[in-house]
Amino acid sequence: MTKAANTIRHRNRGFLFDLDGTLVDSVYEHTLAWRDALEHAGINLPAASIHRCIGMSGNVLMQAFEREADETFSSRKIEHLNKLHATYFKKRSQQIRPLPGAHDLLKSLSFLKVPWAIATSGKMKDAHQPLTMLKLGTNVTVVTSDEVEHAKPEPDLFLVAAKRLKVEMEDCIVVGDSVWDLLGAQRARALGVGLLCGGSGQRELEGAGAYRVYRDPADLLAHLNEIGVLAR
Amino acid sequence: MTKAANTIRHRNRGFLFDLDGTLVDSVYEHTLAWRDALEHAGINLPAASIHRCIGMSGNVLMQAFEREADETFSSRKIEHLNKLHATYFKKRSQQIRPLPGAHDLLKSLSFLKVPWAIATSGKMKDAHQPLTMLKLGTNVTVVTSDEVEHAKPEPDLFLVAAKRLKVEMEDCIVVGDSVWDLLGAQRARALGVGLLCGGSGQRELEGAGAYRVYRDPADLLAHLNEIGVLAR
Repeated sequence: MTKAANTIRHRNRGFLFDLDGTLVDSVYEHTLAWRDALEHAGINLPAASIHRCIGMSGNVLMQAFEREADETFSSRKIEHLNKLHATYFKKRSQQIRPLPGAHDLLKSLSFLKVPWAIATSGKMKDAHQPLTMLKLGTNVTVVTSDEVEHAKPEPDLFLVAAKRLKVEMEDCIVVGDSVWDLLGAQRARALGVGLLCGGSGQRELEGAGAYRVYRDPADLLAHLNEIGVLAR
Repeated sequence: MTKAANTIRHRNRGFLFDLDGTLVDSVYEHTLAWRDALEHAGINLPAASIHRCIGMSGNVLMQAFEREADETFSSRKIEHLNKLHATYFKKRSQQIRPLPGAHDLLKSLSFLKVPWAIATSGKMKDAHQPLTMLKLGTNVTVVTSDEVEHAKPEPDLFLVAAKRLKVEMEDCIVVGDSVWDLLGAQRARALGVGLLCGGSGQRELEGAGAYRVYRDPADLLAHLNEIGVLAR
């Protein structure tokens, strides 16, 4: 391969970021908001079991809770749980902060002309607050679960985001804090990078296919050259 | 070895249990209470970084926070942080529940005449509420950080607890949800059993020396014969 071909390959790489636990520090609030919602509906699940489900969404998340609780939820109960979670999460949402280096990492990628997008299992209405917090302006590609039939661990969000960036899926790096991001990355044939700042362990993330694991966005930014982003 | 010698060995086995995250579901509340306390004092740490420090105590915990924050705390600041944590934790403590099977596991060990104790990095004043919640009565051996110079990951708590049970340290099984319990167990030459219900991953716990990992106390109870407790 020629030098020019290699250069072109670097220019075409794209980054697809998860939001909760990857760019903003909201996983523990989501965990306890779901714990409160479930308890309100008479379902007792340990916080750690709920924590491990965060990052999944919609039906898949509810199926995970059903499995944990060994109980089938009626569609009315599911609707009730979603409303309760929204209420409890809103109460806790003032505590949420950006994760270290999140803003700088995204700004640096933009400066290096590396395309990136946010692909989140959440809804667009819930993405406004964290996006504002990250001070990224309005010109950001964001794909939410409103736009796909199945969110993570299905790869649909990533496929839509890559298409919107006009980058081949195989040239994308998915960055996420949960095993669901990394399983979705594998399904989509992207490379997965894990971040520890959502509370999953290094070996868990490696076990789900992360080819590299960093502490937080700041640590990823300091090691961009390990994953193929070379400073000009 | 004769059959009788084996039987004696089984009778002499003792269990040393961590409390927070092992018997009661309080790790996420402690995590966010510390996050709030630190933020109140002008220190921003991601919740996941704090979560990984829970289970350590006193000076060692503060040193871990100092390392995470890349800052040295004055003794006045440390006192302030401890007070803030106590206040924020109290606000959240009504949400705490026993973990699945905690009561049944301890009752079963008592029924099988297997000695057990609780060895917690917390203070005795903070242990009252969870102990009451577990409905264990008053005849329980509890060793807290009030009684030792250094709590976990130092092995002192376990050494005191084993002595009180009149069981050799090498015949003890330490059960905990954090790597600090398991490192302390190794230091004390006990066997370590990890529980996932404090939010650490299976491979993290195995990496810290757990020779077996279970989901929660209920799962441990269902597999007691794997770790040498045989029903009569």
